[in-house]
Amino acid sequence: MAFRKKINAKAKADKNTGFGTNASSYGGRFVTKSGNANVRKTGIDFLDSISWYHTMLTIPRWKFFFIIFAFYFLVNFAFASIYYMIGVEHLNGINAVKAIDKFGQSFFFSIQTYTTVGYGHISPTGFLTSFVASIEALFGLLSFAIATGLFYGRFSKPKAHIIFSENAIIAPFQGGTALMLRLSPYKNTNLTDAEARITMGIHLEEDGKMVNKFYTLDLELEKVSSLTLSWTLVHPITESSPLYQMNEADIKNTIGEIIVFIKVFDDMYSSTVVKRSSYTFDEVVYGAKFLPMFTRSQDNDKTLLHIDRLNLFEKVSL
Amino acid sequence: MAFRKKINAKAKADKNTGFGTNASSYGGRFVTKSGNANVRKTGIDFLDSISWYHTMLTIPRWKFFFIIFAFYFLVNFAFASIYYMIGVEHLNGINAVKAIDKFGQSFFFSIQTYTTVGYGHISPTGFLTSFVASIEALFGLLSFAIATGLFYGRFSKPKAHIIFSENAIIAPFQGGTALMLRLSPYKNTNLTDAEARITMGIHLEEDGKMVNKFYTLDLELEKVSSLTLSWTLVHPITESSPLYQMNEADIKNTIGEIIVFIKVFDDMYSSTVVKRSSYTFDEVVYGAKFLPMFTRSQDNDKTLLHIDRLNLFEKVSL
Amino acid sequence: MAFRKKINAKAKADKNTGFGTNASSYGGRFVTKSGNANVRKTGIDFLDSISWYHTMLTIPRWKFFFIIFAFYFLVNFAFASIYYMIGVEHLNGINAVKAIDKFGQSFFFSIQTYTTVGYGHISPTGFLTSFVASIEALFGLLSFAIATGLFYGRFSKPKAHIIFSENAIIAPFQGGTALMLRLSPYKNTNLTDAEARITMGIHLEEDGKMVNKFYTLDLELEKVSSLTLSWTLVHPITESSPLYQMNEADIKNTIGEIIVFIKVFDDMYSSTVVKRSSYTFDEVVYGAKFLPMFTRSQDNDKTLLHIDRLNLFEKVSL
Amino acid sequence: MAFRKKINAKAKADKNTGFGTNASSYGGRFVTKSGNANVRKTGIDFLDSISWYHTMLTIPRWKFFFIIFAFYFLVNFAFASIYYMIGVEHLNGINAVKAIDKFGQSFFFSIQTYTTVGYGHISPTGFLTSFVASIEALFGLLSFAIATGLFYGRFSKPKAHIIFSENAIIAPFQGGTALMLRLSPYKNTNLTDAEARITMGIHLEEDGKMVNKFYTLDLELEKVSSLTLSWTLVHPITESSPLYQMNEADIKNTIGEIIVFIKVFDDMYSSTVVKRSSYTFDEVVYGAKFLPMFTRSQDNDKTLLHIDRLNLFEKVSL
Repeated sequence: MAFRKKINAKAKADKNTGFGTNASSYGGRFVTKSGNANVRKTGIDFLDSISWYHTMLTIPRWKFFFIIFAFYFLVNFAFASIYYMIGVEHLNGINAVKAIDKFGQSFFFSIQTYTTVGYGHISPTGFLTSFVASIEALFGLLSFAIATGLFYGRFSKPKAHIIFSENAIIAPFQGGTALMLRLSPYKNTNLTDAEARITMGIHLEEDGKMVNKFYTLDLELEKVSSLTLSWTLVHPITESSPLYQMNEADIKNTIGEIIVFIKVFDDMYSSTVVKRSSYTFDEVVYGAKFLPMFTRSQDNDKTLLHIDRLNLFEKVSL
Repeated sequence: MAFRKKINAKAKADKNTGFGTNASSYGGRFVTKSGNANVRKTGIDFLDSISWYHTMLTIPRWKFFFIIFAFYFLVNFAFASIYYMIGVEHLNGINAVKAIDKFGQSFFFSIQTYTTVGYGHISPTGFLTSFVASIEALFGLLSFAIATGLFYGRFSKPKAHIIFSENAIIAPFQGGTALMLRLSPYKNTNLTDAEARITMGIHLEEDGKMVNKFYTLDLELEKVSSLTLSWTLVHPITESSPLYQMNEADIKNTIGEIIVFIKVFDDMYSSTVVKRSSYTFDEVVYGAKFLPMFTRSQDNDKTLLHIDRLNLFEKVSL
Repeated sequence: MAFRKKINAKAKADKNTGFGTNASSYGGRFVTKSGNANVRKTGIDFLDSISWYHTMLTIPRWKFFFIIFAFYFLVNFAFASIYYMIGVEHLNGINAVKAIDKFGQSFFFSIQTYTTVGYGHISPTGFLTSFVASIEALFGLLSFAIATGLFYGRFSKPKAHIIFSENAIIAPFQGGTALMLRLSPYKNTNLTDAEARITMGIHLEEDGKMVNKFYTLDLELEKVSSLTLSWTLVHPITESSPLYQMNEADIKNTIGEIIVFIKVFDDMYSSTVVKRSSYTFDEVVYGAKFLPMFTRSQDNDKTLLHIDRLNLFEKVSL
Repeated sequence: MAFRKKINAKAKADKNTGFGTNASSYGGRFVTKSGNANVRKTGIDFLDSISWYHTMLTIPRWKFFFIIFAFYFLVNFAFASIYYMIGVEHLNGINAVKAIDKFGQSFFFSIQTYTTVGYGHISPTGFLTSFVASIEALFGLLSFAIATGLFYGRFSKPKAHIIFSENAIIAPFQGGTALMLRLSPYKNTNLTDAEARITMGIHLEEDGKMVNKFYTLDLELEKVSSLTLSWTLVHPITESSPLYQMNEADIKNTIGEIIVFIKVFDDMYSSTVVKRSSYTFDEVVYGAKFLPMFTRSQDNDKTLLHIDRLNLFEKVSL
């Protein structure tokens, strides 16, 4: 394996990344592209291993609404069945003759109770239906209390509105080379006091057995006061860099990832938000240069930031 | 008492733990297993000494729902009694003859008002019932406003989803020994920038009287950048450790605790969360080694973290 | 003025307290007992100078409910007047004859609309009443949306549940003396990483004119890891202390305050909370010693913290 | 261009401001007066580039209520149209004859359903209208859940209640001069641990091409413990200042800005809040002195802070 010889022996491995150095745990990726740890927890009850509330906050919008509609239908179907089983003669105002219509009217009565609309053209008469309707109205109100919380949770959950370039590149830099990747805010928000950290995790043979090693890649600039435009993270490949003297083939043959971590204060949430991403070595382009992504607006009164140019680069030879 | 001789005189006691050094206050435990201070506040009004809101957030789910249902029933029972006392002839639509049925219909009218369902087959006619119903409807809406807040509070309360091994162990470590304990995240969340701190609190005789002394146990690694897998906290038992040269019997005879404190940034809440636990010396296993708890998934694309193996260790001789 | 001579010339004044050093601004107190700045903002519109939302969060509970009830009554009184002016003949189901009863039924109809109970025994018939009822129902729902936010805001607002001793004392300390004051948490909450800061602000004559000067009083212990019991803040009166060699009369004659500031992480809110208080020199007791305020519980399994003993001290001669 | 010669060569430019040094991006302002970055994001879907939730939180109050009312009207207009198209004969209780009246009654039925008032004098009879009403009631409740979240979000969004003087001034200071600007809190809130940072951004010709350069202006006082009164930020114009030896004309000819950034802990929100503003060089007054803005209250028991005097200065010659 060509790579093994190439890793820069002077580079200092980093022990406090929190990833496992025991290579038997390596599952092909340390961190997914979207920044989550590539770990599955087992040996624990499924319900204990997830936070259903936060799952409801992070699922796509259409799924969220689908779940609400499905829940609404199923709950009312269940209550309608109960009313139907008790007997529609205990619901005053039901005038249907056919069973299916009786059930339909029970269903709509259930909805009128659950939503607390309560027109009253159908109303419970006996104890049993009144009692079930009492439970249903409470249940409805609690459901909407929960829905209110879920909506607010979805809206207000702080998240870092930052996107990363799809590729990291090895670019010319100050007479040598540097590993670069680019990120940009994309929402109408003010980000301040941004910090970046890049960790390289590699899976390699050492003393005859496979291990995971981690390296912190030093950045030319680790902090910026305000993150208003794109930010190119630059790791100069100096003698102390683990990437020192690796050529294009070495890069391609490396098994592992470049993990990037951003921490920034978002004044929209008045909160510190974090964002991670990762690049496998397949996603590192050897010999490239990012193209500028901001210009002046036509009437000269604003800076234009072209988000769609985030990953634009041109090939250069190193 | 054998122990008294054994405490390492070179270890430096820690004065800023916030626990009382006056031994007359020692109540057998400084911190409970679940991380709360083992203190009861007295001399203060009970209602002032608790935060009922946060009690509602932290009680088990079944208790929370039970309280809601009980409250719902009792409030409506109270209002039903008022309507009944005013007289059901002031509620239009009540057709019951027996007293019990009259009360029942008052009760369901109360519920229809409280939940704002208001079918209208029963409606208030005079001033008094209308007035009481006005109060009840407001009361109902405010109750559900509070319930909404409670639900949201329960969901969104940041908490550290971390579990600790049941035992701490004294394990072989780099030619000597070390005190170790293990912790692990167990939910689908990204924890970053974790910090750990271990404080040992002991209750001992010094110069002829009982005192509490506290020691910070130095850790091999106090911080990890991301807490994705299990983390074994390692306190090497060196010459400066208060545990230096204590044997199995000494450990067993010690009265006190090992208090562990974790602080970590959870990006699910975008908030720093903390978690404490404590181990009495009975829970320290002398001569043991934790077994690995993560492996590779079968299709090699993920790391598996076996939460149920958190406390697995094998006995070794030191 | 005796005091002027007594201030310790070696003590270093502190410029970055944020309080005005210009003595013409001194209004007898820098900070109120409850920790607010003793400042009134003028030259600004009253509505701009307060945050009505946060006022609603901090007013006493009874005022909060009174405002809600008053608002509820007034809004419905206003809408009732509108319906009455439009004419009750446009409200189907009103059977009153007397003007006062017509108004009363309009009022209850208004409430049934505002709360969305809508029994329906009274209902709008013409365009005008239907239209007003539409507005009122929307208004009602928005009101309850706001009320929900206010309730949640009141519950969830992070605040430091800490009380301070009523007096600060000058106590014997390690052969010399020290200024001490005591504080204690009083709720069922876990406070960690507490920091304290004491600033002394005095109003004195210097070079023939009155100025305000501020001094940071060094503390023996500025931080504790966990604030579970009471905490006595100790400022040793050494040669560098501004209080050095001041006797009882000097203390009494000093115009100014001792301002204490606490910052602590409350895991109930997962948030850092702060609390301030202040002691005028009248509240400093010269020659006293705090009495212990925690003991062991009778069954020896808990520490008891006697909140009511927070300010207990005995006089001693210095 | 006179200015080019005048910039103090000894002043050290600052690379980590996060603003673009590439002058082709300069759009006449780096930061707007209200503190937002003067950047427009393009090349991204409009809906992705804004956070509609936070837009709803930050728009003026009248716009917010207008949007709610417009939404309420339009949604009910849409549902009324559906009921009307299905046919009002499926709505029991509609007694209108003219088409316009039929539509009107459908509209009010829609509102009674959407708000869950549900008087019941109009009620759905067939399957279709019952079904649409079921959807509408759910839709209504979800809308109010969202509205509740928006109201709470608007109230509780942490923001820094700080205003800045309209002008920065060059004032006499300790025998030399200093750049000064003034800020003040204006609400009934306690601000602690305030930090200030001033960055100067200029657009100038260097080596024959236009570039942006940034300088951190050192402050006499960067932090204050509590921000209770006004705070004058003072940048002494020393030999290391980029403004050294610039005269009034130089100031006027400079193209660029003075960007001020404040970070402060607000105990009303128990959160750190930030605020930015910027001064173009047109807004810098050369030769001026701020007038005092706080005095003692008439009854001597409070400090009065005159917010309307924030920008008061008198001209002085330097």
